[in-house]
Amino acid sequence: MADAAVRSKKPATSRRTPAGGAPTAPHTAAEASEPRIDVAAVTDLLLGTWGETRREAREMIKDPAFWRVEGMPMDEHRERVLSQLHLLVQHGGSRRAMPEEYGGLNDNGANLAGFMELVLADPSLQIKSGVQWGLFGSAVFQLGTKKHHDEWLEGIIDLSIPGAFAMTETGHGSDVAAIGTTATYDPEAKEFVIHTPFRGAWKDYLGNAALHGKAATVFAQLITGGVNYGVHCFYVPLRDDEGNFLPGIGGEDDGVKGGLNGIDNGRLHFDQVRVPLFNLLDRYGQVAEDGTYTSDIPSPGRRFFTMLGALVQGRVSLDGAATTGTALALYIALTYAGQRRQFDSGAGSDEVVLLDYGKHQRRLLPLLAQNYAQFFSGDELLKKFDAVFSGREDTPESREDLETLAAALKPLSTWNALWTIQETREACGGSGFLAENRMVGLHQDLDVYVTFEGDNNILLQLVGKRLLSDFAKQFKGADAAALAKFAARQTAGKLFHGAGLRQLGQSVADFGSTARSVELGLRAEQQHELLAGRVQQMVADVATALRPASKLSPAEAAALFNAHQSELIEAARAHGELLQWEAFTDGLARVADEGTAQVLTWLRDLFGLHLIEKHLAWYLINGRLSAQRAASVSRYIDRLSLRLRPHAQDLVDAYGFEPEHVRAPIASGAELERQTEAREYYAALKASGEAPVSEKSLKKK
Amino acid sequence: MADAAVRSKKPATSRRTPAGGAPTAPHTAAEASEPRIDVAAVTDLLLGTWGETRREAREMIKDPAFWRVEGMPMDEHRERVLSQLHLLVQHGGSRRAMPEEYGGLNDNGANLAGFMELVLADPSLQIKSGVQWGLFGSAVFQLGTKKHHDEWLEGIIDLSIPGAFAMTETGHGSDVAAIGTTATYDPEAKEFVIHTPFRGAWKDYLGNAALHGKAATVFAQLITGGVNYGVHCFYVPLRDDEGNFLPGIGGEDDGVKGGLNGIDNGRLHFDQVRVPLFNLLDRYGQVAEDGTYTSDIPSPGRRFFTMLGALVQGRVSLDGAATTGTALALYIALTYAGQRRQFDSGAGSDEVVLLDYGKHQRRLLPLLAQNYAQFFSGDELLKKFDAVFSGREDTPESREDLETLAAALKPLSTWNALWTIQETREACGGSGFLAENRMVGLHQDLDVYVTFEGDNNILLQLVGKRLLSDFAKQFKGADAAALAKFAARQTAGKLFHGAGLRQLGQSVADFGSTARSVELGLRAEQQHELLAGRVQQMVADVATALRPASKLSPAEAAALFNAHQSELIEAARAHGELLQWEAFTDGLARVADEGTAQVLTWLRDLFGLHLIEKHLAWYLINGRLSAQRAASVSRYIDRLSLRLRPHAQDLVDAYGFEPEHVRAPIASGAELERQTEAREYYAALKASGEAPVSEKSLKKK
Repeated sequence: MADAAVRSKKPATSRRTPAGGAPTAPHTAAEASEPRIDVAAVTDLLLGTWGETRREAREMIKDPAFWRVEGMPMDEHRERVLSQLHLLVQHGGSRRAMPEEYGGLNDNGANLAGFMELVLADPSLQIKSGVQWGLFGSAVFQLGTKKHHDEWLEGIIDLSIPGAFAMTETGHGSDVAAIGTTATYDPEAKEFVIHTPFRGAWKDYLGNAALHGKAATVFAQLITGGVNYGVHCFYVPLRDDEGNFLPGIGGEDDGVKGGLNGIDNGRLHFDQVRVPLFNLLDRYGQVAEDGTYTSDIPSPGRRFFTMLGALVQGRVSLDGAATTGTALALYIALTYAGQRRQFDSGAGSDEVVLLDYGKHQRRLLPLLAQNYAQFFSGDELLKKFDAVFSGREDTPESREDLETLAAALKPLSTWNALWTIQETREACGGSGFLAENRMVGLHQDLDVYVTFEGDNNILLQLVGKRLLSDFAKQFKGADAAALAKFAARQTAGKLFHGAGLRQLGQSVADFGSTARSVELGLRAEQQHELLAGRVQQMVADVATALRPASKLSPAEAAALFNAHQSELIEAARAHGELLQWEAFTDGLARVADEGTAQVLTWLRDLFGLHLIEKHLAWYLINGRLSAQRAASVSRYIDRLSLRLRPHAQDLVDAYGFEPEHVRAPIASGAELERQTEAREYYAALKASGEAPVSEKSLKKK
Repeated sequence: MADAAVRSKKPATSRRTPAGGAPTAPHTAAEASEPRIDVAAVTDLLLGTWGETRREAREMIKDPAFWRVEGMPMDEHRERVLSQLHLLVQHGGSRRAMPEEYGGLNDNGANLAGFMELVLADPSLQIKSGVQWGLFGSAVFQLGTKKHHDEWLEGIIDLSIPGAFAMTETGHGSDVAAIGTTATYDPEAKEFVIHTPFRGAWKDYLGNAALHGKAATVFAQLITGGVNYGVHCFYVPLRDDEGNFLPGIGGEDDGVKGGLNGIDNGRLHFDQVRVPLFNLLDRYGQVAEDGTYTSDIPSPGRRFFTMLGALVQGRVSLDGAATTGTALALYIALTYAGQRRQFDSGAGSDEVVLLDYGKHQRRLLPLLAQNYAQFFSGDELLKKFDAVFSGREDTPESREDLETLAAALKPLSTWNALWTIQETREACGGSGFLAENRMVGLHQDLDVYVTFEGDNNILLQLVGKRLLSDFAKQFKGADAAALAKFAARQTAGKLFHGAGLRQLGQSVADFGSTARSVELGLRAEQQHELLAGRVQQMVADVATALRPASKLSPAEAAALFNAHQSELIEAARAHGELLQWEAFTDGLARVADEGTAQVLTWLRDLFGLHLIEKHLAWYLINGRLSAQRAASVSRYIDRLSLRLRPHAQDLVDAYGFEPEHVRAPIASGAELERQTEAREYYAALKASGEAPVSEKSLKKK
């Protein structure tokens, strides 16, 4: 029981001399651990490149006018959030991304960084402002040209034109290319006719559509001269000044949703609605008065993806907001876990603090590590986004990289948000279910992040396809002999992994190893090798499996692809996890303070091991880990969790939240106060000599 | 690519001659599969022993007066649910469990079976009626004696006394033994003084406490003659006829919650509140007028657990309700998945039906299999409950078995509910997020099921301790030699597993095996061996790890236990999964119809393999599966999913829900109508010759 012995004692590493700074305040002396993070420095690290803008946004939302009010009926909530958008305009929050000539800062990275923080005030506010400026406004800005900017941008920025982003249809969500809405050019009138020909073509789930939208950027199949040039975007006025629909336009309210009920989502339909030729947002495709279509991008497919790619900021923004929302839930649950006591340990002393339970450490600390990783990968994504959208690195290749990165990271961070927030809410028991403690509201609001702005599974499939095409490029122009050699290697690899021969060697090598040497075998370098090797092999395996497709009929090829869809999605997920791990590791390299570096290295290791444990069966089946070493992964996670336990409060304090951001009573001192009061009551009762004796103690006599 | 070939063709088994009955209506001819379930017979099987009562309850809740209204503000919702409780009384739903002399049927099984179904109407109704009759009423009935029954039962049954079940405190949830509320006997006045001495001792999260409760069954430390006899239950009037708190009593509203907002949860505090001696519910412990305490159960520990055990029906009821609620979400998502189309397959034909995607089958069908298993295990639990509570099998041993069974199954079914409902909501995309489609509401309402009536982790820990003590009993009285032999066996086992030697043999045996023979190695018998073997070994491993505890100090022993807490909980979970699998398999044995038996066997296999896949790393590390065979598990799940795909609609139809239970527009034909309309539009357009040509087709020319 070497393992248990380690767990019940102070971890060996705590004997190291700290590099300055006081030791972490342990909640009992036995748990003191010497290295300690520099909390303020870690806050800077987490807030990242646009930390200053984030701090500004956090300062602004200390005003209770921005806060979500729990239990507010939908209608009232919708009006409140609209008024919050006007407040944002007053604070200058709506023009950071815009060019200087429209009063903006032309700062794309700062813009998104500021918006992400709004999730702390009310996710409905974050998403409704995202609809107005990130989608509707961005469509006019990114897909339109100067004449459109001059006409509409000022009204969009100052919210005199609230707008909807009418892309999704009831019948088509992530498959935008297949939407049913048509925009047919009429050269006589020099107008486009916008039409939703059947119920499935109605625009749906659009923020600002049910009530507040005065206009919409409507995506439709552009038809001119009898030819369909594919999906383009049109600016379409929706309502008059009294809020009545303009002729030919109608709609429905989407009603109550699982969350985000501060946003007036709704449906729109168009019955032969005419808009001037001017209203085609024509940056990537133009129609002349006579109906002639022109575009700088000859390939319809590339043109479509270029237009959609201009809107990648939605995904970047969701990645960051999900990470910040998750951090808030972790702050609440870990602060509570450090104060709440429950059950006598049997050792006759006080009740046990929740975070001292092995299970409680195990359920929360790896999620904390994961959230840290997301802060680092989110900053990398934001930097990439800023580089492309500022024009500094705006090439087709870097746009494609940005889109792949966003498609890989947004699914992971939004799913992790739901998983983590649910775990935190359960870890707080009944009090976690009260709206005032915020975790249930965060889960409800963030729920839809996993399916909107691109369904997570579909995004990962896109990433998977990109990985496959990169893989194929390696062999482009390779001769038959090289391919045969590759195929043979793959087969040999399979045999070795499958039959466990490589594994056996490692087993023997590991045999008799101490806990210490096992850890040495799971350090950064090995973590990277395991994570990266998994991505490579998974992609190679799917590519090999799909190789026969070229010789099959289209139906058979589709069936073959479908049979490997899950695996491809898993490969993409593995890729995203690797990116997160690498971002965390790169972030670590920038830490100078020794105590901080030590604790964050444990945390990065916990993240790496947590990923490896999640996919342990894969590593075993594929001969990447021996059974012996695989068994040590979970024990190592236990040890890392125990080491990090005294640092948990520091690590969540480093998120830099202030009381106005947290607001949850259970994480604001009430629990500690109650614990103290109860313990003082029992101490006084004991001292008074009037405490009743227990029946059990009587029986012993 | 044998695997892919199998997936792209009709499954081999579909060539079998069916045992009568029409083939499952395939959604394309290529997917026809011949065995077919007898839907009505499967409904009978799922509804189980008290199917008739369930049908009655389902018939009753067809009345829209019982339905949850989405988005209804909390105050209104609370009043609506109270009025629904009165409706239930009118329908005779509140007295099934009561003895005949109080107008009841004395039918415990039927009582719970009827209540569980209320989850389909509104989970708030299910839980609020559970508070009134399952907890408050049950406490009076199970913990009180005839004098109490005569005094209060009629008023409880007819809801003239709405009541709260005041057990949980802000400071103590699952650790009931440590509650702070005291009930001190005053022999002068022949009264108990009920007192909550500090904030943490306030009763909290109690349904009926914020508004409607006129009385409460209050759990408190019974103190008489200076001795604390532990937790007992007292009947305490709360409010007068005008709804004002009686003297010394106060409270707070818990406010908005993550769900179940039709229930008025709140807090109660008691400041030296006096109740007559009569109000001690004294079935298990009595106080004489002079203050003398007596009880038939001398052990304070056993007495405590006996009293708590009398209230096991809450857990039984949650298990069943979670299973039924999950079934509803699966019905909605699978019906939608069979109608919704999205993305062209690339094979040039129609858009693909969601359920034809490999990933979509993979994400939903194993959860369907799991839900089926829960229906079977739930019925076993209900039968056990009925046997004990009817008195037919009321021994301490069978009570303990019942409690362990409930503690094992409730966590699994409630967690599975959240996981499954979330997956179904995501599988429906944006429409899944609309409240009208019900999945988000189910998730919100069922969320708290995982932490109330015993936190799931704590319940599993109880199960784990029971497993450990059963394990220890095996060696009771064994001599040192036997123990040494056992220890040696364990060590040898460990070495074999760890070093992969057993595994190697299996690898060789599997080498070159066809898919068919791999399946043969994962049939029912092997599934059972794998699942049961895992439970045995996990328990033995924890027991071995804890063996040194007897030689340690209490603090060290507690630390040792804590280091293995997660593993013990995992062992208990494995035990619960095994119970579910066995119940499913026993249920199968009762199926006579060959087609039904075939399809349900595939479903049971899918459940078994799904469990094995979930724990695959464990099986590999412990040498129970070779890498080769482990790799085949996932492929086998793919094949089973594909085989079951054409039966998905039959399998969810067999839940027996009617439109008044489903109510979700996306599962009520609207989607199919939209798909048909869209396809007809495009067909007509094509036929008219006026369809625009695509730009791409122009370029090809």
